[in-house]
Amino acid sequence: MIYLDNAASTRIHDAVLDSMMPYLKEQYGNPSSIHRYGRVARKSIEKARKQVASLINAEPSEILFTSGGTESNNIVLSGIASKKPLSQIIVSSIEHDAILQPCNNLKMNGFDIFYLPVDKFGMVDPSFLENQLSQKTSLVSIMFGNNEVGTIQPIKDLCHMCHQQNVLFHTDAVQAVGKIPIDVKDLDLDMLSISSHKINGPKGVGALYVKNGIDISPLIFGGGQENGLRSGTENVASIVGFGKACEISQQNLVENSSSITQLRNYLIDRVLHEIPYTTLNGDPKKRLPNNVHLTFLGINGEDLIIKLDEHGIAASTGSACSVNTQKASHVLESMGFSHEYISGSLRLTLGMFNNKTEIDKTVIVLKEIIKELRLVSPFKEKYSFQ
Amino acid sequence: MIYLDNAASTRIHDAVLDSMMPYLKEQYGNPSSIHRYGRVARKSIEKARKQVASLINAEPSEILFTSGGTESNNIVLSGIASKKPLSQIIVSSIEHDAILQPCNNLKMNGFDIFYLPVDKFGMVDPSFLENQLSQKTSLVSIMFGNNEVGTIQPIKDLCHMCHQQNVLFHTDAVQAVGKIPIDVKDLDLDMLSISSHKINGPKGVGALYVKNGIDISPLIFGGGQENGLRSGTENVASIVGFGKACEISQQNLVENSSSITQLRNYLIDRVLHEIPYTTLNGDPKKRLPNNVHLTFLGINGEDLIIKLDEHGIAASTGSACSVNTQKASHVLESMGFSHEYISGSLRLTLGMFNNKTEIDKTVIVLKEIIKELRLVSPFKEKYSFQ
Repeated sequence: MIYLDNAASTRIHDAVLDSMMPYLKEQYGNPSSIHRYGRVARKSIEKARKQVASLINAEPSEILFTSGGTESNNIVLSGIASKKPLSQIIVSSIEHDAILQPCNNLKMNGFDIFYLPVDKFGMVDPSFLENQLSQKTSLVSIMFGNNEVGTIQPIKDLCHMCHQQNVLFHTDAVQAVGKIPIDVKDLDLDMLSISSHKINGPKGVGALYVKNGIDISPLIFGGGQENGLRSGTENVASIVGFGKACEISQQNLVENSSSITQLRNYLIDRVLHEIPYTTLNGDPKKRLPNNVHLTFLGINGEDLIIKLDEHGIAASTGSACSVNTQKASHVLESMGFSHEYISGSLRLTLGMFNNKTEIDKTVIVLKEIIKELRLVSPFKEKYSFQ
Repeated sequence: MIYLDNAASTRIHDAVLDSMMPYLKEQYGNPSSIHRYGRVARKSIEKARKQVASLINAEPSEILFTSGGTESNNIVLSGIASKKPLSQIIVSSIEHDAILQPCNNLKMNGFDIFYLPVDKFGMVDPSFLENQLSQKTSLVSIMFGNNEVGTIQPIKDLCHMCHQQNVLFHTDAVQAVGKIPIDVKDLDLDMLSISSHKINGPKGVGALYVKNGIDISPLIFGGGQENGLRSGTENVASIVGFGKACEISQQNLVENSSSITQLRNYLIDRVLHEIPYTTLNGDPKKRLPNNVHLTFLGINGEDLIIKLDEHGIAASTGSACSVNTQKASHVLESMGFSHEYISGSLRLTLGMFNNKTEIDKTVIVLKEIIKELRLVSPFKEKYSFQ
């Protein structure tokens, strides 16, 4: 199989799994236990905390382990909302459901949620944000790199604009961390969400960076783990693996980012040149290094995924993190595209294990399948497919 | 090492880890993906759901996967509370912090929380519950078996009493599931929390049983996984392992429960007969098969744990799920014990891998250490230790 759905989930790196194994076998202590099993587990978590912090240039004390990116985002929204009842929260209209759905819940509870529009590249216009910010605004949350079309937002500018108005800024960086260098100090971020399984770590673990001094309420209460901010016995083995995945991501990050960008550009160039009626979605330059998002006119994306799967290629129409697969992408809708255009979309997301041979094979298969599907397309006459 | 802290966490069973390995290696798909990686992951989760359901005689559709027992408990409290604003919630005074702390948060938000007292065995008196239940009560949550002293509550009676008043009943069964037979249909339970790592499954995963038809709000919003009740990419490998752990627990549950009870009773009998000034805490009969909770007069429990650790025995003073280890046990306080009595307590919790040889060694070491510690005890004169 050729796996090109790395934005949905990634293969655990062998070194990550190796790092986890002792904690899945003999080191099974509860980190809160006083005895040596407990102490070994505790120490391993604190090492992982340093590894995660290092990747984004945070302090270890600013890293909070969670069950994943979705929980991290939920902590931010409920944690700030509970401090500022009925305030305004500003998010982009192309956020992941892990931001949009908690916002929807807050909206039903009386909060004022403002959705920033995006342009046809999926880019937020900072002037819209500037116009909206007021004393009523408690939080702005804008994703770093979009999970569907890969567009990278001007996070530093947006964050700076919020701080000018004393408004907290959070970014869902689940798709960006480990793909491009991110320095929370340089960006001056208040909060940032990370997921382990998007960067060749295990599923079921993530982190939330919360700048020291920021007051946030917990979402899950109990034994007081994670400095009282996230209770529950720590997921030791997965936290250790997540730490290792961060360490691996950090090694040669710039070089790896550049080489995956080259491979991505090669794929984009070949597809756009060799398959007619095809367009690239998202910003052509300011985009995640591993993201390719295309629309093939006259095609039904789901048919395409199924055909690709039959040919041994794993791909996606958009976000895999939503179970409502029948719904048209809210991201592409926000970018102003028609339903017909949206339905012909395909997301190919590269990972550290992909190579040029796989990309060449993918282009050959894609050409063949697109031709085949267009011959039976209801839009065959419209576009004169042949 | 002799590991006698199985109430804090347990070793992953080899067969459980074996079942997880494919999902930590080649089967890394996101269960929401359409392609074969996604479908394999989806199928594995649904198999695990059946295994978990089977252990407690629930329907698979009644099982919701979470990040652990603490999250399960939090979902219940916030999920019912948000349906019945400012209502009364009744819990026992010896609940785990994963119930008490979310209750505390609800209390600060205007809910009326009533804490049921317990007797000197840690048993709830059903008549107290009966007196408290009213139309204002939205939920009663009483733990199945106590994590510190092991007392098993009369859950069926308590639940029946609640249903007579149309009040929902939840039980935190984290310490009881897999140790004693539990049938949610026979008990007529509305909700029940389970943790994987207490039954030789991996950490970071648990479940909440919610009887079909019960309306509960999510705690974590997003992609709509788990039937909209718990968003976030499913922790596939850990869910698979948890399912396997439930399957293993179910096999010969009655026999295993009986043999661990025998081993426990052997340990209790020897300690009570061979070490003076020692008492068993918790109900002597209605107690978890694997729980031994003792008080050695004149001893400081933490010193004891450290000494035991030096002698290769992992034990606990009480709950390991709380990071506030300096605090006196609220469970023993509720049972009416003095601070001096509480501070001399030791919890030994057995697991499937313990044997008689280990228990014999433990008794020998305990006798020696207790004698040693009592010789330097500030209470040496008071009790005439020699």
